[in-house]
Amino acid sequence: MVPAVSWRRLGAAAVAVALSLELVYRFMRRRRRPVREVLFFPAPLLCSEPLLSPEKQCACPLPHRTDGPMSQLLRRLLGARRSLEVCIFTFSSPPLARAVLLLHGRGVRVRVITDSDYMAAAGSQIGELRKAGVEVRHNQHSGFMHHKFAVLDQRIVMTGSMNWTMQAIQTNQENLLITDDSACVRAYLEEFERLWEEYNPTSYCFFPKKAEEGP
Amino acid sequence: MVPAVSWRRLGAAAVAVALSLELVYRFMRRRRRPVREVLFFPAPLLCSEPLLSPEKQCACPLPHRTDGPMSQLLRRLLGARRSLEVCIFTFSSPPLARAVLLLHGRGVRVRVITDSDYMAAAGSQIGELRKAGVEVRHNQHSGFMHHKFAVLDQRIVMTGSMNWTMQAIQTNQENLLITDDSACVRAYLEEFERLWEEYNPTSYCFFPKKAEEGP
Repeated sequence: MVPAVSWRRLGAAAVAVALSLELVYRFMRRRRRPVREVLFFPAPLLCSEPLLSPEKQCACPLPHRTDGPMSQLLRRLLGARRSLEVCIFTFSSPPLARAVLLLHGRGVRVRVITDSDYMAAAGSQIGELRKAGVEVRHNQHSGFMHHKFAVLDQRIVMTGSMNWTMQAIQTNQENLLITDDSACVRAYLEEFERLWEEYNPTSYCFFPKKAEEGP
Repeated sequence: MVPAVSWRRLGAAAVAVALSLELVYRFMRRRRRPVREVLFFPAPLLCSEPLLSPEKQCACPLPHRTDGPMSQLLRRLLGARRSLEVCIFTFSSPPLARAVLLLHGRGVRVRVITDSDYMAAAGSQIGELRKAGVEVRHNQHSGFMHHKFAVLDQRIVMTGSMNWTMQAIQTNQENLLITDDSACVRAYLEEFERLWEEYNPTSYCFFPKKAEEGP
């Protein structure tokens, strides 16, 4: 016969295991809470410094609140830990460029695909990103590289009507859907990788060949 | 004491109830399979007639296949049974306008919000929609109504970079995320209703008042 003390120990162990399983389950559930956000713009004009350099005291006359859709977008971007893929038609917003440069500086692998016609337009931030060493590629065909999406840590995708410009953020009616649905994230990542290879500078064609004529 | 025959009947009834519940559960599960699609453009140039007028034989020289992202988009749109809200910056694609007019003709409640600057541009389909009796409203402010989303039957939302133009469909790199996630659908519907009221023609202001000065 097993002594009584063993039953007590067994009981305590069982309770401990049950509690641990419950904790693990709760932790996993919390981690797995799905991301489904929709941001609508225009956003109120706020200073982005409290999010971009919280250690400094900014004296500019703009409100220093951190609410509103632009703050939500910046917080999401700055949350990236390993990788950021940006596929954007026009990129001229200084706060968003600051956020991308911050991530690059932290060692996050940042890659940017953009449109060849607009990347040299006045106010474009693409030159600043390139100067800082961010990898940038662009299309070479006549249509627009009109995508406006980004993938964070291969886990979250944001897509919508919004270019990364001050006009989009402050003046236009725009939307941005943010989701961690794995099927969606995979689709956008595949599209990014496909374009990244297609726009590889080593395969640029400066003197396009004529299409071969059939017999 | 309950006679034995009642027990048999009770057993049969229990089995019947269990089977019915299983069938209902499977039916609900099938109905609830989540919609998560991402379409990427440009799409190959195909004739849209097999989807828009399947009863007619089209003799045009374009391929009459019904695969590819444009066919998927048309099929989704034509699947609307009760309502369609379209919130689109530029709308000049004749096949998409045909689809919207077909739905309008079938009694689906169609409402369109668009941008005032682009709705009168060459090739815009907004005039055709209005002539056919589709309700259309547009912005009145200086920024762009730059959204590119649609809500079908208050159940599915599609959003992305793509305007409803031939260039977007055939030439540009574009994306369209289609989902029935209820939180996302609700957010876009609320945005649509908000803009629909804001752009109500009865509240247009042709002679804007000067902002009242404070004391």
